[in-house]
Amino acid sequence: MAERYFDDFKVGERFSTATKTVTQDMIVEFAKVYDPQPFHIDPAAAKHSIFGGLIASGFQTLALGFRLFWDTGLFKAASMGSPGFDELRWLKPVRPGDTLRVEMEVTESRPSQSKPDRGIIRAGFRILNQNSEAVLTFNSMHLLKRKLD
Amino acid sequence: MAERYFDDFKVGERFSTATKTVTQDMIVEFAKVYDPQPFHIDPAAAKHSIFGGLIASGFQTLALGFRLFWDTGLFKAASMGSPGFDELRWLKPVRPGDTLRVEMEVTESRPSQSKPDRGIIRAGFRILNQNSEAVLTFNSMHLLKRKLD
Repeated sequence: MAERYFDDFKVGERFSTATKTVTQDMIVEFAKVYDPQPFHIDPAAAKHSIFGGLIASGFQTLALGFRLFWDTGLFKAASMGSPGFDELRWLKPVRPGDTLRVEMEVTESRPSQSKPDRGIIRAGFRILNQNSEAVLTFNSMHLLKRKLD
Repeated sequence: MAERYFDDFKVGERFSTATKTVTQDMIVEFAKVYDPQPFHIDPAAAKHSIFGGLIASGFQTLALGFRLFWDTGLFKAASMGSPGFDELRWLKPVRPGDTLRVEMEVTESRPSQSKPDRGIIRAGFRILNQNSEAVLTFNSMHLLKRKLD
């Protein structure tokens, strides 16, 4: 893939990622460190929770979705990190065996006023399961390098 | 600590957490799985990035902050998960050796209209470093059980 920089991302462009299947081991391993709520780490307790079974930490779903996007290579040359995300909504539980993929659409593009070497794009992310149900959506900002001549 | 339920959280209440020191190993281990940008996994590459050295993935900072809050026990009895977070802002890099803590303030409280066993609180989270600089702020929603007689 050709290297992409800030100016290569156009409003309305859409990208999609490969898939990743989430396992019970992954869910429990992450949650033990970062989010040890019973419905993330204990299958028996999870069964009696409102979720009716083990579900992934929402932080893990978020990070896995970003990893899927990162692996497209689209941000590899230009990423300078993110100032922030807005409107994260966890819409459906992610359960062991679910297969996730990500759709991303560029919604805004703005060169930096003060720093000519960079710009900010906004993007809408949708993390979908194998039934094409959105499990997590959010709007992100990304600081991207410009390709200077 | 006494068990807390939805009705025990009052708007304006503030809570603070214990601290956690972030190590280079933690940063690299997390980022290799979830966010393998060079400035999160490669100290040499990070030195030449805009950050001037290795920094933690923002997803790790978020999850570590939640873990610190979870460990207060305040949500242990009542947590039913989160519908979403808003206005995440990564304000300062988190570097190896930084010590994080969290301040949380309840900003809104609303019983569910349709389900009498639960309510939603909104909270403002601030993740601070050892210099009391905010490294990440966000506004969260939490679904909490009510204590029914």
